[in-house]
Amino acid sequence: MRNRKIVRRYDHLDGHDLEQGESVFHTANGYIGVRGAFEEGYCCDVRSVRGCYINGVYDITSMNQAEPLYGLVDRKQTIVNLAEVQDIRIWADGELVSVRGSYERAVDLDCGIVSRSFTFSLNDGSSLSVVYERFCSFDLSCIFALRCRVTGSRRHDFTIVTGHHSKVSNFHDPSDPRLASEAGEFLSIEETAVKDDDISLVKVRTNTSGIEVSSAVHDSIPSASMNLLISDGVAERTFSISDEKGFTFTRLVSLSDSVRYSDTEHTSLDMLHRALSLTYDGLVEKQKEHMSDFWHRTGFFLEGDDRLESAINYNLFSLLQSAGRDGFCHLAAKGLSGEGYEGHYFWDTEMYVQPIFSLIMPSLSRNLLTYRYRMLDKARANARILGHESGALYPWRTINGEECSGYFPSGTAQYHINGAVAHAVIEYYEMSGDEDFMISMGLEMLYEICLLWLDTGVYTPRGFEIHDVTGPDEYTCIVNNNFYTNCCARYDFEKTAALMKDFTGRGKHLSFNYSDEMLDEFVKAAGQIYLPHDDEKDVDAQDDSFLYKKRLDLSGVPHDKRPMLLHYHPLYLYRRQVCKQADTVLAHLLYPQYTTRERMLNSIRYYESVTTHDSSLSKCIFALQSFALGLVDEGLSYFGSSSEIDLEDSHGNTRDGIHTANMGGSYLTIFKGLGGFCIQDGLPSFAPILPEQWKAYGFNVNFRGNIITVSVNEKGASFTSGKPCEILVHGKKCTAGPVA
Amino acid sequence: MRNRKIVRRYDHLDGHDLEQGESVFHTANGYIGVRGAFEEGYCCDVRSVRGCYINGVYDITSMNQAEPLYGLVDRKQTIVNLAEVQDIRIWADGELVSVRGSYERAVDLDCGIVSRSFTFSLNDGSSLSVVYERFCSFDLSCIFALRCRVTGSRRHDFTIVTGHHSKVSNFHDPSDPRLASEAGEFLSIEETAVKDDDISLVKVRTNTSGIEVSSAVHDSIPSASMNLLISDGVAERTFSISDEKGFTFTRLVSLSDSVRYSDTEHTSLDMLHRALSLTYDGLVEKQKEHMSDFWHRTGFFLEGDDRLESAINYNLFSLLQSAGRDGFCHLAAKGLSGEGYEGHYFWDTEMYVQPIFSLIMPSLSRNLLTYRYRMLDKARANARILGHESGALYPWRTINGEECSGYFPSGTAQYHINGAVAHAVIEYYEMSGDEDFMISMGLEMLYEICLLWLDTGVYTPRGFEIHDVTGPDEYTCIVNNNFYTNCCARYDFEKTAALMKDFTGRGKHLSFNYSDEMLDEFVKAAGQIYLPHDDEKDVDAQDDSFLYKKRLDLSGVPHDKRPMLLHYHPLYLYRRQVCKQADTVLAHLLYPQYTTRERMLNSIRYYESVTTHDSSLSKCIFALQSFALGLVDEGLSYFGSSSEIDLEDSHGNTRDGIHTANMGGSYLTIFKGLGGFCIQDGLPSFAPILPEQWKAYGFNVNFRGNIITVSVNEKGASFTSGKPCEILVHGKKCTAGPVA
Repeated sequence: MRNRKIVRRYDHLDGHDLEQGESVFHTANGYIGVRGAFEEGYCCDVRSVRGCYINGVYDITSMNQAEPLYGLVDRKQTIVNLAEVQDIRIWADGELVSVRGSYERAVDLDCGIVSRSFTFSLNDGSSLSVVYERFCSFDLSCIFALRCRVTGSRRHDFTIVTGHHSKVSNFHDPSDPRLASEAGEFLSIEETAVKDDDISLVKVRTNTSGIEVSSAVHDSIPSASMNLLISDGVAERTFSISDEKGFTFTRLVSLSDSVRYSDTEHTSLDMLHRALSLTYDGLVEKQKEHMSDFWHRTGFFLEGDDRLESAINYNLFSLLQSAGRDGFCHLAAKGLSGEGYEGHYFWDTEMYVQPIFSLIMPSLSRNLLTYRYRMLDKARANARILGHESGALYPWRTINGEECSGYFPSGTAQYHINGAVAHAVIEYYEMSGDEDFMISMGLEMLYEICLLWLDTGVYTPRGFEIHDVTGPDEYTCIVNNNFYTNCCARYDFEKTAALMKDFTGRGKHLSFNYSDEMLDEFVKAAGQIYLPHDDEKDVDAQDDSFLYKKRLDLSGVPHDKRPMLLHYHPLYLYRRQVCKQADTVLAHLLYPQYTTRERMLNSIRYYESVTTHDSSLSKCIFALQSFALGLVDEGLSYFGSSSEIDLEDSHGNTRDGIHTANMGGSYLTIFKGLGGFCIQDGLPSFAPILPEQWKAYGFNVNFRGNIITVSVNEKGASFTSGKPCEILVHGKKCTAGPVA
Repeated sequence: MRNRKIVRRYDHLDGHDLEQGESVFHTANGYIGVRGAFEEGYCCDVRSVRGCYINGVYDITSMNQAEPLYGLVDRKQTIVNLAEVQDIRIWADGELVSVRGSYERAVDLDCGIVSRSFTFSLNDGSSLSVVYERFCSFDLSCIFALRCRVTGSRRHDFTIVTGHHSKVSNFHDPSDPRLASEAGEFLSIEETAVKDDDISLVKVRTNTSGIEVSSAVHDSIPSASMNLLISDGVAERTFSISDEKGFTFTRLVSLSDSVRYSDTEHTSLDMLHRALSLTYDGLVEKQKEHMSDFWHRTGFFLEGDDRLESAINYNLFSLLQSAGRDGFCHLAAKGLSGEGYEGHYFWDTEMYVQPIFSLIMPSLSRNLLTYRYRMLDKARANARILGHESGALYPWRTINGEECSGYFPSGTAQYHINGAVAHAVIEYYEMSGDEDFMISMGLEMLYEICLLWLDTGVYTPRGFEIHDVTGPDEYTCIVNNNFYTNCCARYDFEKTAALMKDFTGRGKHLSFNYSDEMLDEFVKAAGQIYLPHDDEKDVDAQDDSFLYKKRLDLSGVPHDKRPMLLHYHPLYLYRRQVCKQADTVLAHLLYPQYTTRERMLNSIRYYESVTTHDSSLSKCIFALQSFALGLVDEGLSYFGSSSEIDLEDSHGNTRDGIHTANMGGSYLTIFKGLGGFCIQDGLPSFAPILPEQWKAYGFNVNFRGNIITVSVNEKGASFTSGKPCEILVHGKKCTAGPVA
């Protein structure tokens, strides 16, 4: 058994710990998510966000543009806090049982359960042991389960008051561009009822988007009397227990929404009954089975750095919690852990997270791509708003497929999101070999993306150029020939033309409109695409003018001026060689075939001197690319500080939610960076290296249904697989087979 | 006597005519402005803006940024509609006297008075002649005067009800980025009173900026009884006249504000008493004297195109009405004629209007520059917000000196406003020789502007480059090495260094901090500044990448998609070779010394093929530069369509206010384009050409207090002056002297 328990012990109540903890100890299953608030509230000042969310359930709010130019986005979607489902207050002999001193929080990664435990001292000197456990069920996606066990050394009278209501609102902060800036009233109560004697049901509808959500709650304490009162939108229960040493409280919550279900009341009640029949313990067993299967699939272990191993395990678990599973939703930048970035989906998922699912849980990857396919028409419409006559442009940030980016120079102008979607399609197909997906969805997405690139670019004497886009580095906006973007376009052109020709050549029928001439245009543009570089420095240039800008001495930027976006005017940043995050370095990682090893080495050295890593998407890429280039010490240095962003709150904003892209990046660093995994000429290819500080590590690759187990230690790397299969190791063909 | 009466006859009431007319027939004197509304209101649906403004009196309103990045402007100033002062309703035998059919409006440019006249038919078949006249006094800047003469063929009973109140608001339209998008409540009533029996006084204060304004009104009809009632913020008078054929109503309004005056109530009453003692007729006489002096100063005439001559006369008069005179204010894009652009001051004034004042009324030019000097500290603060460690950056749009630009890529990023201010300083000094101004204000502004250029630019292998600024063409934002901007910087460096050395060399004491080393830096940067051009085309490039963008076939852009900014996403425009207005062509006009004649010819041909002239600042520059290059037919073609923008409402938005920059451009075209006037080697230089369609034209130049009269006809050009002076004509030195 690996080290799969994250435990944090706190010796006193601290606002920062509590705020961070609401995110770190949230629970989710890709459909619903509940923030890790203290059930009973806090005895100190905390910016608490007691959120409960459904992935993809949003409302619409207006977004004022200071100057409403044509096409600027003036309404946005925002994930909605739907209900209060964790309100449990316990009185023992009239004293409110709450944390006043030390407490412990934990995530049991083997069980998929988060817990909180503390000892409560009563005025009479006696004490109670209190343990809260909770999880969102991977087995029944509508279900959030919560259990509280209170044990005393002597008998007490207990009163337990629990709330279930939808008189909730979202958090807002007008001073931070990364959070919603306006208070919103998003919910109207449609129904509040008692069902089957002891189930409370609250049905709400979002005010503008008109999405209905029903939440149903069942609370129980064996052999305790219960009184249930409802009023508009609110259900309150009171349990009374006399003269007992303790008790076990169990809450089961069921949520469902009208995006997926035609009758949310029926669904929520039905799911709650299923959960009740399974019982809490039954749900826990299923949860454990699910987690066991997950860890088995990953095959990840790391000997020699327990802390890093457990951080990566936490990250993998968090991603599993975050990923939408039903094609109606995606994976938000903050997962389902908070309201940062308003629950929007970005390119982060495709570039940082989805490769992991393509590696270990391809069905999850297909679900995410299905969502993008469902949104293809909206991406086409988005392209039309931008004046493109053909093609589709995925929105920079969205829930329902419509653009929510308020400041387009570092939003909509990031056309490379198209490259991320295309990359995810191609990678998923290469890993899974899922032809059905490609025929019904994947190729159409690729074709539309290439049409967009073609319509965006222009032939000049230097070749096919792409002007006025923004690359991943948001400190340099609206540039010409962003190296990263141009690499995306080239790759998409090449791959799409080749895949389309392969499928049609094999007589596969594609039901969307395309032309062979257009495929030739893709090939032509790919062949002529212009990639800027500096011959003298032998460095690939982030864009046409980046290397001519003023150098900024990053050591001169004081700590209290970070992240720079909160302290410097965009024009100041645009005018300087300063990067928020990996840009050209990321291009090198994804598309090394378009440059040389020497230039990649020069480039990573060059760009690390001008990169602030103000984005959480940055250090993991530098780690990964360092390893890929054999710069093991540099890689370890970046890796260490990048894998614990949320557990250590190293960006200071974990309270707004976890950083899923960074979490993905940390595991990418293992299998792509250290393991050197990629698909080359259709074969799984590895080039493992072992940092001397480590003893061993390993991971699994699910290649077309065949699990390849990679294990690296001081003696070298070994490869086994369920069925014999050809692989490349450091460029040499070998065969991996079952363990002898 | 030249053709100096603008008359418009309308045969029916039409909403468009009325809306346009409120702007065209506004009256102003640089301090106060009153829109040309019908006193009695309208009998048809009109988007009426019954505004009354004081130049520089603003309130502050919030401006939401969709993503509040650091330094983005989140509050703006807006000119405030201060009072209803033109509310006059007349009943004749119980019938409201109003325009129901034909009417005439006029501006008498010789008198500086606007009028409206119509015949009103009563139900009994009799009729009344009604003439309204009004003006803002150039003599008493606080005074707006209005007279109405009603004459009938038989006797009637008249009731006249007049209003004076401050229960007014600004116009807003959320759909047009060029107008205020939010409704604002800007005024609080502080006092409403009757003074000296028959004067109503309303004192208000702007809610956020806290500026106090007092308006005082005196109405009179000889030998009519009057009843005056006041309530909170409102004064209403009723006059009754029995059995008369007609009457003459006179209103005198006085406005003053606490930016200029310590006691506005006292000032307004004092000024009103002064006006009353002068009488309406006395004020008219003073107005005529003022206008006579003005026309005498301009010396402008044009034989062979009466329509153009009268359009230019109208434009000159409108500019005279618009220009702030007291150093507390400037000249707004719409003058004092409406609320378009919220009363903000732009670069337009310095580049398009101020050259005229420097030519004919240098004291006015000095007043405008004094305003800019008063705002120098705020320009320094603006530069700090943008991260500049030294120098001053004038805000793109402002009233009180603070930036009001909501979308910085086509606002604050237009650093060339600094070039406009510097150009105006230098031109004023060259024309006036005003050393006192330079020592006390001008040189400090120039020095600060150069510091800003120096801090903005960067030395690269190509020279001194300026990155990430926006030139005059707002369809191409945030570019590197905008030719126009780099020319501004070069000129400012050269001139500032030379002027500073000249002044200090002559032992003049400058009281601001400067260093001689910095002057050397200016010279160095000027010498190395990079100006992009295309050798093959022999065209100066608008910026580093403009000539590589996609060409846009302008003939394919339908009329209903103009102006393009209202119909195309900024990224669509940025990615194409399409210009809203003259950019490189304007640089050539102002700074021909930095290129060649051949390249200017190639460039104007190139850029006219990609310029939409969606900005009213464009065609006049193409006209001017065409003439300057000897392209007379092209010049005339641009000139014709550019000089009547407001009289003909050819941009369709005159209702929001007049286009002062364009008006300035039309006169610039005369003396700079046709007359070829500039200062060369310290001498007035001329290169007059006469279009063959014209018989003659002429204009005056006030060079250092000496009036040079230029007269051009088929026989050639003649030059006379009060005192003998050296001039250059087509590059040859001559002497102009008094008329023999």
